[in-house]
Amino acid sequence: MQTASNNLANGGGSLMVAWQLKDKKVLLVGGGEVAYGRVESLLGTDAHITILCPEKGLHPTTKQYIENYPERIAYFDRRFTGPAELHKMDLVLTAIDNPSSSKDIVEHCRKAKIPVNAADIPELCDFYFGAQIRDGPLQIMISSNGNGPRVSSLMKQKILASLEGYEGLAMSKIGLLRVRLKERVPGVGGSVGRKRMKWMTRMCNQWSLKEFTLLDDAMIQKLLDEGWERDRVPTFEEVSGRPSTSVETVHSESTLKSSLSGSNLFVPIANFVAGAVFMAAVFLVRRR
Amino acid sequence: MQTASNNLANGGGSLMVAWQLKDKKVLLVGGGEVAYGRVESLLGTDAHITILCPEKGLHPTTKQYIENYPERIAYFDRRFTGPAELHKMDLVLTAIDNPSSSKDIVEHCRKAKIPVNAADIPELCDFYFGAQIRDGPLQIMISSNGNGPRVSSLMKQKILASLEGYEGLAMSKIGLLRVRLKERVPGVGGSVGRKRMKWMTRMCNQWSLKEFTLLDDAMIQKLLDEGWERDRVPTFEEVSGRPSTSVETVHSESTLKSSLSGSNLFVPIANFVAGAVFMAAVFLVRRR
Repeated sequence: MQTASNNLANGGGSLMVAWQLKDKKVLLVGGGEVAYGRVESLLGTDAHITILCPEKGLHPTTKQYIENYPERIAYFDRRFTGPAELHKMDLVLTAIDNPSSSKDIVEHCRKAKIPVNAADIPELCDFYFGAQIRDGPLQIMISSNGNGPRVSSLMKQKILASLEGYEGLAMSKIGLLRVRLKERVPGVGGSVGRKRMKWMTRMCNQWSLKEFTLLDDAMIQKLLDEGWERDRVPTFEEVSGRPSTSVETVHSESTLKSSLSGSNLFVPIANFVAGAVFMAAVFLVRRR
Repeated sequence: MQTASNNLANGGGSLMVAWQLKDKKVLLVGGGEVAYGRVESLLGTDAHITILCPEKGLHPTTKQYIENYPERIAYFDRRFTGPAELHKMDLVLTAIDNPSSSKDIVEHCRKAKIPVNAADIPELCDFYFGAQIRDGPLQIMISSNGNGPRVSSLMKQKILASLEGYEGLAMSKIGLLRVRLKERVPGVGGSVGRKRMKWMTRMCNQWSLKEFTLLDDAMIQKLLDEGWERDRVPTFEEVSGRPSTSVETVHSESTLKSSLSGSNLFVPIANFVAGAVFMAAVFLVRRR
């Protein structure tokens, strides 16, 4: 897949970024069908959310979020009244049916230098949304760069089917190992930083994601004592006292190879189950 | 795959967005190893890039980009000299080895309300980067939310392996069909917009991505005449005059395996065509 990487300098693309909203204030104007999707995205961050929407315009799901997360969402039963609404806002999203109101809000944002997304009016947006996948710390976003939301969502299904359900957990465990290593050998950048990074890279190259999912405190301790301190990467067997094959039993079947050969029934079945569980999760989440 | 959906309201995540940089000015401070990755990401957008870096600090790859894309990159052989450098900038990225200089630049950006990313200093960043995949109009970004770049890159390999090499091309063709449909039935939003969206969704549900890759002007014409106008979705066979199984032959099957082995020419060719079609679509859209 030589070219499915960065086709340089042909432009036309976006700068894909993970925006940080910890302690930031986000204004969402609108509460309908598009708006509740925005609320979902925002609830996944640490933003303070303010929603402006006349109550009769609230989608039942938006309403539910407002009720369920009062500490996260401040709701005002009114339309956008003017530039004073933008006071101290860090990001603004409009999701209303009135393009000319949207345009007004965007103009106020431009003057206040606040990044803004106006739903359905791409030419007014500083940034677009795309189809998203989240599994713990793992976030994936798929953008079609304006070729339609439907095709992004098809791609999302395809990528979801290629995931095996433990990637987010593995990511958390790798993050934990990094934190513990930094506690043992503190400092930002420089030769220590480089040495830490190198060892983490060796770890990631030699252990499988599945093996990482089984990492516990005792194993981390052993990895640091017998791995980091001696500048080597112990095997999973050495650290866990279990054969590496036990990982397979725990997680049933090997990852990349089985999904590639396609001859294995695990992948389609796993995907079927994944779809079922996913829909169940969606319903459960919405019911809350 | 219980968790591979949106784990709502647990926070800790980022807002994943596709930042639009058409006609925007981006300042990159630094020219080393991290910087050239930033240049690659920026070249994929339509940003005007300004690089500040003493020549001796330029990585050979950064140097090459500066030489190869003089119309895209303005290069200045000096360090960041002060807040005047930020004049008219829309986005700032630092990629230098000096954390205290980075911090200074970030403070200037905050005052000027310019979003900024300081490489290696996550607590100073308005946004993070992640591992990226690009195939024509398709862009995918993978973020580990601070659990380490190495694990994002592992996930990138996994997702790349699940792609079959024609997704970007299919996306371009779907985009082209949307453009032609909009030309035939213009107008923003409202009932026309909804009807267009509905028909496109039906198309996407009934045709495979592979079938879309073979779409040409004559087929689009036929789809609109015999599909859109009659509120139905013609089959691939009906529109192309070829059996649907020919799609498999054309694409010599299991592109997945071949794209991994690298033995098949289809993938690079498809990607080449995807790039071409994508740019055509971009131009068509802009001309309107």
